[in-house]
Amino acid sequence: MDSNTVNKVVKDALNHNQGKINSIYFTACGGSLVDLYVSKYFLEAEAKKVTTGWYTANEFVHVTPAKLGKDSIVFVCSHSGNTPETVEAAKVAQEHGAFTIGLTFNKQADLLTYSDAKIIYEWGNEAEVVNNPMAITLHATAKLLHGIEDYPYVDQFEDGFKKIDTVVANAIDQVQPRTKAFAQKYKDEEMFYVLGSGPSFGHAYGFAICSLMEMQWLNASAIHSGEYFHGPFEVTDKNTPYILIKSLGRTRALDERAQTFLEKYAEKIEIVDAKELGLDMIDDKVSEYFNPILFYTILCEYRSKLADVHNHSLDVRRYMGKVKY
Amino acid sequence: MDSNTVNKVVKDALNHNQGKINSIYFTACGGSLVDLYVSKYFLEAEAKKVTTGWYTANEFVHVTPAKLGKDSIVFVCSHSGNTPETVEAAKVAQEHGAFTIGLTFNKQADLLTYSDAKIIYEWGNEAEVVNNPMAITLHATAKLLHGIEDYPYVDQFEDGFKKIDTVVANAIDQVQPRTKAFAQKYKDEEMFYVLGSGPSFGHAYGFAICSLMEMQWLNASAIHSGEYFHGPFEVTDKNTPYILIKSLGRTRALDERAQTFLEKYAEKIEIVDAKELGLDMIDDKVSEYFNPILFYTILCEYRSKLADVHNHSLDVRRYMGKVKY
Repeated sequence: MDSNTVNKVVKDALNHNQGKINSIYFTACGGSLVDLYVSKYFLEAEAKKVTTGWYTANEFVHVTPAKLGKDSIVFVCSHSGNTPETVEAAKVAQEHGAFTIGLTFNKQADLLTYSDAKIIYEWGNEAEVVNNPMAITLHATAKLLHGIEDYPYVDQFEDGFKKIDTVVANAIDQVQPRTKAFAQKYKDEEMFYVLGSGPSFGHAYGFAICSLMEMQWLNASAIHSGEYFHGPFEVTDKNTPYILIKSLGRTRALDERAQTFLEKYAEKIEIVDAKELGLDMIDDKVSEYFNPILFYTILCEYRSKLADVHNHSLDVRRYMGKVKY
Repeated sequence: MDSNTVNKVVKDALNHNQGKINSIYFTACGGSLVDLYVSKYFLEAEAKKVTTGWYTANEFVHVTPAKLGKDSIVFVCSHSGNTPETVEAAKVAQEHGAFTIGLTFNKQADLLTYSDAKIIYEWGNEAEVVNNPMAITLHATAKLLHGIEDYPYVDQFEDGFKKIDTVVANAIDQVQPRTKAFAQKYKDEEMFYVLGSGPSFGHAYGFAICSLMEMQWLNASAIHSGEYFHGPFEVTDKNTPYILIKSLGRTRALDERAQTFLEKYAEKIEIVDAKELGLDMIDDKVSEYFNPILFYTILCEYRSKLADVHNHSLDVRRYMGKVKY
């Protein structure tokens, strides 16, 4: 993504409604919704005035927030750009007078019909992570918050976006042996719990629903590390596999507490640790928001190795795009 | 709960900070957090100005929203009243100048030390559902929104709270045969998906983590009905059991879509339908917000019958309150 494109989108959004913006919403479905989670989390954590919300598109369409209006910006993302409820969500946002930012991989997407700003992102192994929709949205959101209420750490964000591709590339090399070992060890498992917290909870959920359920037809359940001790931990035993994505940043203590418990009462545990994978190269004023960008790519390595041992291509579907629903 | 108590709490909250309130937050852990979900959903749907957030307590403590301040009200709930991270969350809220409303079953709770308003709720089979923490919080939140920005349907809410115990009592009778049949049919299942949407998604999650995981040591995964088609549905087959809690109200279309798909591709399906159970006795301006109050009690019937066939008491724990964590 040309950084001029993001700058132009941010500038246009900030000029909307004579510059009076009080809310930034995020809506999409499935994996695209997951990609928007960290931007919602960032605003909840950092914004002093701007409010936010994060909705699966069909709920946004049917139960549109009463606050949505001309003082809102709405990010709407769909990889194909034609997911009907996502296209409808963009239409609803526009009808309410909000400035809609549509993100898609498809230049001919229906989504773009209802997008005041259009972002066609890159995708695939050759694309840099800074150009994926999660990073673009986070980058734009940080700049928007700076523009609206002078959020102070945009320079640290800029620096982080310069470094993140190097961090991710190094981490991919680093995890090759362990992702292969993981796939061998867990190749016969039929159900996984995925734990994460803070900026990464979206990706704990995303790995469960997209990588495991959609792409490998495995059962999965995402649990917030902070919630684990308030019900979910009662199923913990030596036979149940857990994947814990351990964030760098303020919620790390929550992940560590889950890890300590798992190491005592479970045996099938895979820890994916952002700190060990080098995320601390990024300034600690902002590094926690980069966790999911790192985790997304690293978890792709995990799922790819699972696909290999299962001889089950990541692209095969039985329902999605094949039957009516 | 004496309605005067709720009125007094609402009055005191509305007088806080010279009546300038712009946000209402909800924080707790596990089942108590679930109880607060519908109030967050109500504010997101209905509030024109007031903003909201819903956080597991330890995340609220570690990543306190930058917006939290003297213009905030924070509901904090803990059944025992001594959950350390929940007590800490109330302390953090108070230190930020927010008006904290503590809800607990325990008159001696540590939580009350940090509560500007103290609500000791009723519990157990003899308690009326209007007096459980979910209903109290929803009732107070609706009144707060009325007080802050003149939310128009408080009378319909009052009427709903007068009717809900009758609706629930009738529904309990109605589901006796089917809950027994459910338990017999599914007694050997080891994993369930629980689907729900809108006001009820909190209880889909709650039934998964508290009733199934914590109380019956069964694997479970909660999926939003709107998200089901964007990944999760790929695991659907004739062997996997699904419980769909079907809401009355604006997100019913999302649940119906999931139901139609399940009826075609799955065989183990239990539908718990708020409309069939009589929730439409309540005015449709507000009835959707009563879904989880009905579902909570009805799902307690389901779990109780499961406990019977499993000969596994709902009160037995292996870790909670027994080991260090």
